[in-house]
Amino acid sequence: MEKAFFDNLIASVTDMLNTKDYKLLKETLSDLFPMDIAEMLEDMSQEEVVLLFRILPKDQAAEVFSYLSSNRRKYVVLAIHGSLLNHIFDELFFDDKIDFLEEMPSNVVKSLLASSLPEDRNLINQFLNYPDNSAGSLMTIEYVDLKKNMTAKQAMDRIKKIGLDKETIYTCYVLDDTRRLEGIISLKVLVLAQDEQIIGDIMDTNVILAEAYDDQEEVAEQFMKYDLIAIPVVDGEKRLIGIITIDDIMDVIEQENTEDFQKMAAISPSDEKYLETGVFTMAKNRIIWLLVLMISATVTGSIITHFEALLSSAVVLAAFIPMLMNSGGNAGSQSATMVIRGMALGEIELSNFTSIIWKELRIGFLAGFILAAVNYIRLSLLDNTDNSIIITVSVTLILAVISAKILGGMLPMAAKIFKLDPAIMAGPLISTILDALTLIIYFGIANVLLF
Amino acid sequence: MEKAFFDNLIASVTDMLNTKDYKLLKETLSDLFPMDIAEMLEDMSQEEVVLLFRILPKDQAAEVFSYLSSNRRKYVVLAIHGSLLNHIFDELFFDDKIDFLEEMPSNVVKSLLASSLPEDRNLINQFLNYPDNSAGSLMTIEYVDLKKNMTAKQAMDRIKKIGLDKETIYTCYVLDDTRRLEGIISLKVLVLAQDEQIIGDIMDTNVILAEAYDDQEEVAEQFMKYDLIAIPVVDGEKRLIGIITIDDIMDVIEQENTEDFQKMAAISPSDEKYLETGVFTMAKNRIIWLLVLMISATVTGSIITHFEALLSSAVVLAAFIPMLMNSGGNAGSQSATMVIRGMALGEIELSNFTSIIWKELRIGFLAGFILAAVNYIRLSLLDNTDNSIIITVSVTLILAVISAKILGGMLPMAAKIFKLDPAIMAGPLISTILDALTLIIYFGIANVLLF
Repeated sequence: MEKAFFDNLIASVTDMLNTKDYKLLKETLSDLFPMDIAEMLEDMSQEEVVLLFRILPKDQAAEVFSYLSSNRRKYVVLAIHGSLLNHIFDELFFDDKIDFLEEMPSNVVKSLLASSLPEDRNLINQFLNYPDNSAGSLMTIEYVDLKKNMTAKQAMDRIKKIGLDKETIYTCYVLDDTRRLEGIISLKVLVLAQDEQIIGDIMDTNVILAEAYDDQEEVAEQFMKYDLIAIPVVDGEKRLIGIITIDDIMDVIEQENTEDFQKMAAISPSDEKYLETGVFTMAKNRIIWLLVLMISATVTGSIITHFEALLSSAVVLAAFIPMLMNSGGNAGSQSATMVIRGMALGEIELSNFTSIIWKELRIGFLAGFILAAVNYIRLSLLDNTDNSIIITVSVTLILAVISAKILGGMLPMAAKIFKLDPAIMAGPLISTILDALTLIIYFGIANVLLF
Repeated sequence: MEKAFFDNLIASVTDMLNTKDYKLLKETLSDLFPMDIAEMLEDMSQEEVVLLFRILPKDQAAEVFSYLSSNRRKYVVLAIHGSLLNHIFDELFFDDKIDFLEEMPSNVVKSLLASSLPEDRNLINQFLNYPDNSAGSLMTIEYVDLKKNMTAKQAMDRIKKIGLDKETIYTCYVLDDTRRLEGIISLKVLVLAQDEQIIGDIMDTNVILAEAYDDQEEVAEQFMKYDLIAIPVVDGEKRLIGIITIDDIMDVIEQENTEDFQKMAAISPSDEKYLETGVFTMAKNRIIWLLVLMISATVTGSIITHFEALLSSAVVLAAFIPMLMNSGGNAGSQSATMVIRGMALGEIELSNFTSIIWKELRIGFLAGFILAAVNYIRLSLLDNTDNSIIITVSVTLILAVISAKILGGMLPMAAKIFKLDPAIMAGPLISTILDALTLIIYFGIANVLLF
């Protein structure tokens, strides 16, 4: 939907709410996608959200609810009463139910569980126990199960009977009597098959699987690699316990990317949205790394202090410190970012270590010499700088860029070897290390060349 | 597939190649997914790739080919001859054909086009003309088209007849006689419908569409928002010209994220993979920004030069420059990253400008005071630093962090208003601006407090 059109829509819906033209409002809303209504609600006040939610037909309300952010859901839950809330909860897909329960206050959770069937309650409790970021936390149970002795016709009949409430019918799961997964069959294969063909003969037994405690990032990689639209999740005995569908995996991919952006920018990762996060939480997520980096930057400070005598006798040296530190830092974080991203996408493996260092070394030479040359020319032409200073700065630039490139390529891989997080090595930590290194090179060379 | 298992597999396949046990090799390969064979080929030498490719059955070869990286594809194309190459080309889905032609040398393109049917050739030429990063460049033409006066039974019969070669049959497209898109119908709705129901009555006329020249990033956003698995692409007269499927959109999402990582790390974006890119190309992608940033860092240099007299009389001030510049830079890039990521995910709009600045201001106050307090305590306890210096450093820290937070939140949004790229504002440019600002604050305060 176009932005302008969307803004117009919100304006006219707000208008209808104000003038209490609920009939027209109901009609307008019934033409909209639930995702658009949900997006509209994100920009409305608590009163408007609640009012509009009461006007929605029951079934549409449940669907819109599943697309709302957690804070808008809270508005709704606080305002609506027992039976409507129970209805909405019942209508949610199982994975959305679990997400919903995880973010609600415990009294709401208790009352919803109390009104669920006992077998549902057990399953819900089991699913609530899967750790965040695990495959289990993404699963739903609304899938089509078939038996391998069915004919294609019988399978299609079963899909017609039970398919409406399933999250996907495009992949169906063939189970034995103990719910062990024997194979999968896509609806495409079923539709193209002859009526009398036996499922066991046409199903696919070579199945890409996940286990409930697998990391969600690994599961997302399977989706990307094998072009999946759903994946079965099994337990240790290969019994099917749920499936994960691609819409949830798309969210995982964006969430994992966001976490990497945050880590590289020295922020403790969080999947809360910017506008919904309070000032204190945000400050907390940021302050830890700022403190760590401030304190580690004192190392650079003590290097300068150590060379204070040298600096006093040539204060002009201080003027080049920011440029040298920035160039080293930028060169290093370029390399680190490329390597971290390559590892995240599975393009770079630890076995590529030496070829990466060799590549970064050559890039470092090229980049270092070009930077030094430009800098040399600029300083010789424009500034009134002593020649030995110019040479000191240029040589430092070359050495700093080369070591930055090598360390930038090496450290993220070293982090992975020691099971640390490569993304954290990228921005913040690397630049601190490089700052210190650049200064030592600089003062070392100055010491030799200037005195 | 597990890493260890995979390494084993490569070892045994290489073994079979060396011992020329082609029969066993053929059997082993036939049990594998084409994606796994393709991944295996990425780690093999040119000779092995070509040999293994010749052993693959023709149809499996075509499928494996569609998952190969462009440089492995070149190995294959250089080695295989006319009819096998033509067969592989014919078997590719239309979108993969276009991708393939875009990366091949012109003599290969010419010969493949020459052996295509004239009507295909026209269509191929038209599709080759869509710009990179446009919806058009992702389209394929293998979709199921239906008519609105068909019954559900007739539609299912048509799908059975033509479905095998379609990239997806899960969404079907209802077209009039001029190929104008009248609606879509999912296979789920079709399967659940009664045989005699008319497509026109059960199809969905409220369709999420793309146009061929839409940016691929916008199309990806539609997929995320509306949980699509395919989207129809229409021309100005709403005639259907192709569809885009979710597997290609997953690649777009990863590619756009990679570009943002690169821009934030001051690298000119490129979608070539790290290991496949030459040293000169990589150096070129990185050197431009390094030069720009080196030259702009001379501004910080001249600020220091300007205050040289001040610095000579209190050289100790120099020791705190790196720590202050880093803290300001880190604080700013934290804010900028959050805002840029929020805009990329559509969570933050330009209309949120004031609330973001207000939030960043408060976070800046909190973070600035905490950093200054910790720093004050550390300096008072440990170092032998003059009290007026400690106060100068602490006040600078507070002001620098606050301005960093505000600028970090503001600049990416300002970039968007002026149609510049917010991601470029994040890392490199912001830290240069903040370095200068921090120094001015520092020397300004020192000037007042120390003399």
